[in-house]
Amino acid sequence: MDEHPIITLLTDFGLRDPYVGIMKGIISGIAPNAKIIDLTHLIPPQDIRAGALALDRSCKYFPPGTIHLAVVDPGVGTERHALAMRIDRQLFIGPDNGLFTFIIQWGKENRKQVKAFKIENPRFRLEPVSPVFHGRDLFAPAAAYLAAGAALEDFGPEITNPFVLSMAVTERTSSGWVGEIWAVDHFGSLETNFDNTLLSGCDPKRARIHIAEKIIDRWVTTFAEGKPGELVLLIDSADRLCISVVNGSAAQELGVGVGTPVELLVY
Amino acid sequence: MDEHPIITLLTDFGLRDPYVGIMKGIISGIAPNAKIIDLTHLIPPQDIRAGALALDRSCKYFPPGTIHLAVVDPGVGTERHALAMRIDRQLFIGPDNGLFTFIIQWGKENRKQVKAFKIENPRFRLEPVSPVFHGRDLFAPAAAYLAAGAALEDFGPEITNPFVLSMAVTERTSSGWVGEIWAVDHFGSLETNFDNTLLSGCDPKRARIHIAEKIIDRWVTTFAEGKPGELVLLIDSADRLCISVVNGSAAQELGVGVGTPVELLVY
Amino acid sequence: MDEHPIITLLTDFGLRDPYVGIMKGIISGIAPNAKIIDLTHLIPPQDIRAGALALDRSCKYFPPGTIHLAVVDPGVGTERHALAMRIDRQLFIGPDNGLFTFIIQWGKENRKQVKAFKIENPRFRLEPVSPVFHGRDLFAPAAAYLAAGAALEDFGPEITNPFVLSMAVTERTSSGWVGEIWAVDHFGSLETNFDNTLLSGCDPKRARIHIAEKIIDRWVTTFAEGKPGELVLLIDSADRLCISVVNGSAAQELGVGVGTPVELLVY
Repeated sequence: MDEHPIITLLTDFGLRDPYVGIMKGIISGIAPNAKIIDLTHLIPPQDIRAGALALDRSCKYFPPGTIHLAVVDPGVGTERHALAMRIDRQLFIGPDNGLFTFIIQWGKENRKQVKAFKIENPRFRLEPVSPVFHGRDLFAPAAAYLAAGAALEDFGPEITNPFVLSMAVTERTSSGWVGEIWAVDHFGSLETNFDNTLLSGCDPKRARIHIAEKIIDRWVTTFAEGKPGELVLLIDSADRLCISVVNGSAAQELGVGVGTPVELLVY
Repeated sequence: MDEHPIITLLTDFGLRDPYVGIMKGIISGIAPNAKIIDLTHLIPPQDIRAGALALDRSCKYFPPGTIHLAVVDPGVGTERHALAMRIDRQLFIGPDNGLFTFIIQWGKENRKQVKAFKIENPRFRLEPVSPVFHGRDLFAPAAAYLAAGAALEDFGPEITNPFVLSMAVTERTSSGWVGEIWAVDHFGSLETNFDNTLLSGCDPKRARIHIAEKIIDRWVTTFAEGKPGELVLLIDSADRLCISVVNGSAAQELGVGVGTPVELLVY
Repeated sequence: MDEHPIITLLTDFGLRDPYVGIMKGIISGIAPNAKIIDLTHLIPPQDIRAGALALDRSCKYFPPGTIHLAVVDPGVGTERHALAMRIDRQLFIGPDNGLFTFIIQWGKENRKQVKAFKIENPRFRLEPVSPVFHGRDLFAPAAAYLAAGAALEDFGPEITNPFVLSMAVTERTSSGWVGEIWAVDHFGSLETNFDNTLLSGCDPKRARIHIAEKIIDRWVTTFAEGKPGELVLLIDSADRLCISVVNGSAAQELGVGVGTPVELLVY
């Protein structure tokens, strides 16, 4: 057990209501030494996949022993399980609804240990458990007790197949690949699900993107290489192919968003 | 005095400007060990009642000794008092303008000790005090000195009647009760001022809600019981009757907001 | 070295994406004892001047030894330097693009020591450094290593002329001064670049503001002195002349924003 364990929070609760503050109050009562760090609370309501992506992108930058508490939970109160997991050297608490898809997948692909347990032990919850706010009554206490030294095994029975989302995959075509817009960030940059490894075999100067009836072929390494307002292609900080407008918003310029199909043409 | 006292912050200062960060800087200088937790800074500007509700809903989830620093303060710089209070086992700092209405009321109804003092001692402020930013010059230092060990009695003279708002109450009618929408959350759920105890004497299957010329009678326990888009009634996490749209926004669907009248029909 | 050094964060990264959380993860791994405080992450994208103003307004309220990590960085990945600075008794980390203009100026005007170094030492970064996210790979590690005890001198060669923005200045006219709207806050208050010292030589009762074809001459000390909806002039918490609407938004009422010209008439 860490002296100052880190608990991160990721939710779709927004920032207007005190829901997140309430969770922090509960954590502070149970685990006074925990250091709480917000990842984001502006996951679009009920958008499990967006939450899964944001969590995957963040968690690897945290030290071993970090507890990631994630709640995007349209099925709150139903029969979906509540999960406490260890994947490699980090811990995860949240609903068993796909929110941990990418991390589980990463763990399995890299032969890391993935151990998942149902959260069932009434010792680690706030009674009575509200059927509409497990973040408060179930998940925040679970993360806090974990930070305070509880063992994963104490939460409930082990399960072997935590739920994973079926994922958008890139598909090979005769001229390259088809994929989709995966995420749109605060700056309006459009992240595709094309990993930069797709480009390793081809001449990047000839690679171009087809989206929203436009062809984009202006590659840059940094935003400042382009002219303000210019549509550019670059490899973003998650090593994925990304469409941006220099000092502007590609989402707005192209009128597109998450889920928009996109083609990578390499021949 | 706690070794790591908690100070919560609730304001209408928003998140764009560094006002909240400035308060945290001052607190950190005076009480380096304090653990600062945000409740929310998106209380609608000058909306004391919304602030009072959010604070009431949050504070009971924090451990004894927590200091709640709340600033929604349209009367800043006027003759309204600055308050330092102990209610039961928690402490409260903020303007004496009704922001603590629900907590004071809870304390009185439950025979808890309510002790209130004016903040007047110049030792606990930043001079000169700006007439437009008491959060920075008066309230943040007061909360920090309290965390650092100052006694409530040192802040100024005791007062016996801190200001409380007159509150919307539910009224009995021949067919049930009339009340109003009390709060609208990030998800667009409409919380009424009907406590779930109102339903204890009646057959919940016959209870229904009249709002915006619609009758709603679909009761659920969890959101997932309803169909996406469906208008449902449920008891929310604050034990109040609430109108929601599954995976959607009831506020938007019904075109209503805080203050909209609502009827609970039970006969 | 502080036992619990403070690191503040100011960026234009927004609150939707986990970019800020990622930076906090990295900091927590390198400097587990650092106390991280957000100033704001809602600086308008790429608006270096707005970031510089917000930082200047905040930093003086933090204790000596505080490390301010600021990233508004349209030139990320280009030849602009990365800076590690000491100004008086605080430390600053960020791009050398003008973000520290007001603090450097304050330091020079008040004969404080200003020492600036390029961040070049590969020991203090995350490899490989993404050309589009220096906040993560360069600046967060630098701030964290500084908090963990690294000396400024270890980061790279000293530089003597960190970049400063050319600034909007107030100009004397026959009837007073011309200046501009400098910042608009969450409440819609319009802060001018008129320092309150401009008013020290004149009769404030005769001073009035000309903006957007309106003359405003209603001076108040506190918001509550005015009537709800009234346009008022006051000295704000940063000691600058400010135009507000009581319980409303002056920005909206006048239809103006940052950069709008404004005249202070004193004769």
